[in-house]
Amino acid sequence: MILIGEMVRRAREIIAMIIFAVFSSDAGMTPPYWNRGGGASCSHCLSWRLAAETNNVQPWRTVPAHCCSCVGAYITGGQYQYDLRFVVEQILTYADEIPVAGDGLDAWILDVDDTCISNVDYYKSKRYGCEPYDPAAFRSWAMEGECPAIQSVAEMFAKLIEGGFKVFLVTGRDEENLCQVTSENLHREGFVDYERLILRSAAEKGRSAVAFKTEVRRRLVEQGYRIWGNVGDQWSDLRGEFVGNRTFKLPNPMYFVP
Amino acid sequence: MILIGEMVRRAREIIAMIIFAVFSSDAGMTPPYWNRGGGASCSHCLSWRLAAETNNVQPWRTVPAHCCSCVGAYITGGQYQYDLRFVVEQILTYADEIPVAGDGLDAWILDVDDTCISNVDYYKSKRYGCEPYDPAAFRSWAMEGECPAIQSVAEMFAKLIEGGFKVFLVTGRDEENLCQVTSENLHREGFVDYERLILRSAAEKGRSAVAFKTEVRRRLVEQGYRIWGNVGDQWSDLRGEFVGNRTFKLPNPMYFVP
Repeated sequence: MILIGEMVRRAREIIAMIIFAVFSSDAGMTPPYWNRGGGASCSHCLSWRLAAETNNVQPWRTVPAHCCSCVGAYITGGQYQYDLRFVVEQILTYADEIPVAGDGLDAWILDVDDTCISNVDYYKSKRYGCEPYDPAAFRSWAMEGECPAIQSVAEMFAKLIEGGFKVFLVTGRDEENLCQVTSENLHREGFVDYERLILRSAAEKGRSAVAFKTEVRRRLVEQGYRIWGNVGDQWSDLRGEFVGNRTFKLPNPMYFVP
Repeated sequence: MILIGEMVRRAREIIAMIIFAVFSSDAGMTPPYWNRGGGASCSHCLSWRLAAETNNVQPWRTVPAHCCSCVGAYITGGQYQYDLRFVVEQILTYADEIPVAGDGLDAWILDVDDTCISNVDYYKSKRYGCEPYDPAAFRSWAMEGECPAIQSVAEMFAKLIEGGFKVFLVTGRDEENLCQVTSENLHREGFVDYERLILRSAAEKGRSAVAFKTEVRRRLVEQGYRIWGNVGDQWSDLRGEFVGNRTFKLPNPMYFVP
């Protein structure tokens, strides 16, 4: 077994040397280690994705055309799920240390789309964000009520509620048309026992996500809630006022909500 | 030439298939495309790095032990420089659109360490953040005054000044011991014509970076400056109050300043 292991290791080294020689020949420099096999443009796309996730690029309407395959591979190849799960682990580690008072005022705020439930199946038809936002098509998708849970977030949600937190789901989805279907979708996917689902009312139409969500949080804080954590896939979920004691940015390279 | 190109392409495909077969055999699943050749643990390390860069992990004292080689490869393999340059491009695109008033009050704030000048040479001896922070050793390094410019940021700095902005360099380095050497280091590396270099005074010792930098920015705003942009490698540069119209997070997976 040791000999076979040694052979495999040698074979890997030789193959790595060959691939290094072949791939490095046309760029004139060594590609970063995670880029071997990913195509020359992926270095740039990794930079784009990191910059987008850290809110250095704003606003952006679509994934850059040359990054379509990189972003698609990120979403479908496993790393997106790893990244989500990693953030969830951070959230649970933090939540475990919070001294829950038992007065029912310890709160968490979670966004809905691509935080609790996933639109990846929809965005597949939009080449994972390479096509511009299509409000009518997205509304049809949302009306189906078939968004699957993001599994790691669903588990986290259940643990927060078990831990005695009040969980508020806050979404920019429009209340008038999407309240019932969103609520049913969430329930079917295991999001039950949350404190309140807050959608955007007709009066709040046209306000930015930052302004709308700030206002929601302001009202909760005025009601006495302590916002321990705030989780979303968009920086507009996490900026503004009353953002909470900690904010957690989930990955989403497919779209940008201003 | 076409035939040779075709042969090279076929050879690449075959090699990619071989490497896919060898590497995917022991994990039991396909590694993400950027992970082929990067070792099994790099998926986890990419998740850690993304989470650290988006401020989802805090505080952290060292790079996780199993990520040492991944982070080292990121810093030395080219991607770190690509990522820096990409953010700089975003900054310059944004700066170009700012209506500079000409009253001398349009300001930018830049951090110093690993924003203007680089400590990568020092952190090499600390395995790129795998060893814990060593205040005495870092001070000796800083006292040498030999930090090289981060080239893309130096170019950006010059363009901001050309564009009519007042640039303030704000650093947590201690004023008493490091003022002169830092100033000389910056000058030698091309950082000249900034408006002011602001270090941490003896009175501000022990305050958090967020509190210290907020106070500095508050005073600038009170003096009438409009902070258009705020650039740093740490979230503590970019959080708190008076953060500016836009903040830009430069990558730094080597250390965390609370």
